[in-house]
Amino acid sequence: MTTPVILVLDTDPSPRLGRLTGRAVVRYADERTLAGQLADADVLLVWDFTSDAVREAWPGDGPRPRWVHTASAGVDRLLCPELAASPTVVTNARGVFELPIAEYVAGLVLAFAKDLPRTLELQRQRRWRHRETRGLAGSRAVVVGAGPVGREIMRLLHGLGVQVALVGRTARRTIHGIEDLDRLAAGADWVVCAAPLTEETRGMFDARFFGLLQPSAHFINVGRGPLTVEEDLADALRRRWIAGAALDVFQEEPLGPSSPLWDVPGLLVSPHMSGDTAGWRDRLGEQFVSMYERWAAGEPLPDAVDMARGYPPSPDVPS
Amino acid sequence: MTTPVILVLDTDPSPRLGRLTGRAVVRYADERTLAGQLADADVLLVWDFTSDAVREAWPGDGPRPRWVHTASAGVDRLLCPELAASPTVVTNARGVFELPIAEYVAGLVLAFAKDLPRTLELQRQRRWRHRETRGLAGSRAVVVGAGPVGREIMRLLHGLGVQVALVGRTARRTIHGIEDLDRLAAGADWVVCAAPLTEETRGMFDARFFGLLQPSAHFINVGRGPLTVEEDLADALRRRWIAGAALDVFQEEPLGPSSPLWDVPGLLVSPHMSGDTAGWRDRLGEQFVSMYERWAAGEPLPDAVDMARGYPPSPDVPS
Repeated sequence: MTTPVILVLDTDPSPRLGRLTGRAVVRYADERTLAGQLADADVLLVWDFTSDAVREAWPGDGPRPRWVHTASAGVDRLLCPELAASPTVVTNARGVFELPIAEYVAGLVLAFAKDLPRTLELQRQRRWRHRETRGLAGSRAVVVGAGPVGREIMRLLHGLGVQVALVGRTARRTIHGIEDLDRLAAGADWVVCAAPLTEETRGMFDARFFGLLQPSAHFINVGRGPLTVEEDLADALRRRWIAGAALDVFQEEPLGPSSPLWDVPGLLVSPHMSGDTAGWRDRLGEQFVSMYERWAAGEPLPDAVDMARGYPPSPDVPS
Repeated sequence: MTTPVILVLDTDPSPRLGRLTGRAVVRYADERTLAGQLADADVLLVWDFTSDAVREAWPGDGPRPRWVHTASAGVDRLLCPELAASPTVVTNARGVFELPIAEYVAGLVLAFAKDLPRTLELQRQRRWRHRETRGLAGSRAVVVGAGPVGREIMRLLHGLGVQVALVGRTARRTIHGIEDLDRLAAGADWVVCAAPLTEETRGMFDARFFGLLQPSAHFINVGRGPLTVEEDLADALRRRWIAGAALDVFQEEPLGPSSPLWDVPGLLVSPHMSGDTAGWRDRLGEQFVSMYERWAAGEPLPDAVDMARGYPPSPDVPS
């Protein structure tokens, strides 16, 4: 057997791949050179997960990698009909981002409940203004997205005494189906989006949806930008249909300095960083190395992406 | 038996006292008139807990209230040698502020871990700057103050995966004695003060203490202002001995616009609001009314302040 070739979509050497020396040939590609190098690769490691290059370069026929791994939770930038129809296995960085994202969401919810952005603004103005804040325990959250990220968000918020409803595509056990979303959202203090981007979820948070919410509600998106119709959210905030929102993901990233989103009242903008705690790149590298070892030994890769749905399987859904 | 007189230290009618109509005579006093009215009062309700008037007006001998209740967690503004030596029972607002304060502390810890103040600053500048943040789970906190507030802080942080050490005056069961504080603080990511203000704790967080902490540590005070030597904390932040701090309580409140604390780098200033969630005044009023009913029926009041220690008893300390 010849030494397998791992093609890395990234310009910088990825951490930890040195541990595969002698067991794999590691090559690097950028968006320009990817198409020409795919045919010779056994494995494609998508380290730069913000790129659409895979979708554009994926060969319809002919030789191609047997395994594609992306160093991200979402797989939306990868999937295309050709890849979905091919026998190639696609995996994601399950296990790396869940807890950091859940902590980030808990931090946002508490910041809103405790009026922290206003406190920082008043501090800049050297003004002492006592306000009453909101109790978090006993408040209601709807988490949209019943995958590992949504579940971890539910776990942390539940630990803070929040009543959490989890909404997935289809109802099962303790998870609500999407048909319950409007009703649950209308009674929620916090609506958190941790859903995958698919053709079904694109633009689902729009004017109609924001119109259902309570004026005291907050919306948080840590999933993918195109789930939110950004102009509708900005409008809902300006008209005070809802009390506040936080976006960590956007239609276009990075958000340019001229974007109107930067100063929408009540909108907290952060640069797609909710999952990235110190050491995250090392953890992603270690995860890939250990998955490679399984793959090279001929073992099956767990949690491969379900091509029809467009995301990895949930633990309690029969595949 | 004549109808008891409740004297309220506050200029506005307190909520809920109307429920005592016919069962008590309710009178109001301000700082100026308090001394002259104390002799005729059976009960003193200290609604304006920021006042030192009780300490100044308390009679050495002669008639005085048999019960003093303060609508606050801390009792430091009340206690004086004359009150401590008298048979008068002193109670505080146990049960009202613990959870709100603990949520507030969890919000501050997460805000620091997730670099939220900097995110808001960058948003004002319309700058997209991805940063790595800190994972909260597995980090270490020391909570100073083993009363109900400190315990609730421990419970919430523990639920977020933080390893929490609780430090009280004396070691008992799972609580560390004050002699362990230096060692624990030296290894902590978060040092939270929820201790009562007594002659023993005044000024305990000073240059010597901040010098023990890790450069990555954060200090949070939701107890009482005079526990912190404010100039020493400002100095520690300017010299980067520690990474950040949040003060919700101050030597002098309200903090004046000319205070140097407003713009110390890394210091988050909030206006003594950590425990004040919507409805708090109603809850304090209800609590007093229900305690009054016990008192009027001749039942003992639970959790009376231990005059020698200067704070209410902890559940697991024999009184």
